[in-house]
Amino acid sequence: MDKLLVIKIGGNVIDDEQKLAIFLQTFAQIDAKKILVHGGGKMATRLAEQLNIPQQMVDGRRITDRETLKIVTMVYAGYINKNLVAALQSMGCNAIGLTGVDGNVIKAHKRQQANVDYGFVGDVDLVETRLLHSLIEQQYIPVIAPVTHNASGQLLNTNADTIAAEIAKAMCKMYNVNLVYCFEKEGVMKDVNDDGSVISEIDQQLYQTLKSDGVIAAGMIPKVDNAFIAISQGVKSVIIGKAEKLEQLINYQAGTTIK
Amino acid sequence: MDKLLVIKIGGNVIDDEQKLAIFLQTFAQIDAKKILVHGGGKMATRLAEQLNIPQQMVDGRRITDRETLKIVTMVYAGYINKNLVAALQSMGCNAIGLTGVDGNVIKAHKRQQANVDYGFVGDVDLVETRLLHSLIEQQYIPVIAPVTHNASGQLLNTNADTIAAEIAKAMCKMYNVNLVYCFEKEGVMKDVNDDGSVISEIDQQLYQTLKSDGVIAAGMIPKVDNAFIAISQGVKSVIIGKAEKLEQLINYQAGTTIK
Repeated sequence: MDKLLVIKIGGNVIDDEQKLAIFLQTFAQIDAKKILVHGGGKMATRLAEQLNIPQQMVDGRRITDRETLKIVTMVYAGYINKNLVAALQSMGCNAIGLTGVDGNVIKAHKRQQANVDYGFVGDVDLVETRLLHSLIEQQYIPVIAPVTHNASGQLLNTNADTIAAEIAKAMCKMYNVNLVYCFEKEGVMKDVNDDGSVISEIDQQLYQTLKSDGVIAAGMIPKVDNAFIAISQGVKSVIIGKAEKLEQLINYQAGTTIK
Repeated sequence: MDKLLVIKIGGNVIDDEQKLAIFLQTFAQIDAKKILVHGGGKMATRLAEQLNIPQQMVDGRRITDRETLKIVTMVYAGYINKNLVAALQSMGCNAIGLTGVDGNVIKAHKRQQANVDYGFVGDVDLVETRLLHSLIEQQYIPVIAPVTHNASGQLLNTNADTIAAEIAKAMCKMYNVNLVYCFEKEGVMKDVNDDGSVISEIDQQLYQTLKSDGVIAAGMIPKVDNAFIAISQGVKSVIIGKAEKLEQLINYQAGTTIK
């Protein structure tokens, strides 16, 4: 099977013009089959402020009322997605911007939770690989915004980390998939204030120790948990590290590899 | 060659929930290869107002400064495109939303005109048919927002009528293409106030007469001019008529056919 890289960039990278440019240049040049999944960034929050739409976050998830869903759709699927695609196109990378709605790539359902109403937030049911597979085989590079749908006409705001993991897992049928989470930190670190303390490899046993010792911080736990689930479902490796070091990350020369 | 319908809906249809629903239901059910091109509507203007970004129109074209381009990208490529795709998906129509940026489908250049600076408005250079052809052959239905790019990273706001015509012309290599412009009127009418006065068919000779008699109104002339150019470049027919009558339009039972 061919190798496929599923690479996710977070909002912090998108908000930093210089970091983003470095990342995109490297991404464009990677000579492998690849998918880019992107998060949101501050633009949605800024636009909500300008339009006087109050925003509420619970556990890092935006509470998505109808007006906020509009903003999310405009900013993620419109502004950010199309500007990323235009930048990649200018670098000779034949990108195609998609959401989970397009070609029914990601079907989700509105999150049902007794204690919190997240609004129009979607939890993924199914990644339909047909379109992605066909595009990749034709040398197109899918660039995916974190918006999905419920197949009944409702758009849903969906966590980009989750989308990346779900796509990676689904594509394992056809490819040897490596999942890369690019963010603002060097990786999983023993000391969050010491860039040199990055842990280069974590397996289940070490993870349990790091968790019980309180080394892995709260915000990192869902990322690493998701990584282990992805591995258990066929993803070859999950790498977490700094966006500007993408080339080293995919060569296991930087970041934290979860195996 | 197979038949391909390139169908354009204007902003007036998009702004009218009921008309849009009727249109989409019919569009979803058409048993033929098809592409939908959509315009903008009032949402971009409303959003610009809310954000205090002054808007200026010249000859029906929005002057697109940097802030307006942001709005256009968010509203056309984000909100409208993804909601149309979600609605079509819910009707069993496997739609995929695209702009001219995605897969480099439409390359354009920033309009250069001595007397007016239109800002980030694009005139089409080239429609790259590879992606559209591949998607259509796989039973996907492209839904295209009027945003293009210059291949150097710059998004451009581009007239949706023009995009529809350019796509129709380019796809003639592979299909027998019929181009359908859906808007709020019955078609080209002898008397704009009399819905019964629709002219069912116009050829070049009749068009010259109607123009010299002042029967065809100013706003309609560029539409009909473009239609004749499309015909001269291989499009089988151009039909102009009411969005709610899509089924009759494609069967030549309503609207104005230009041959």
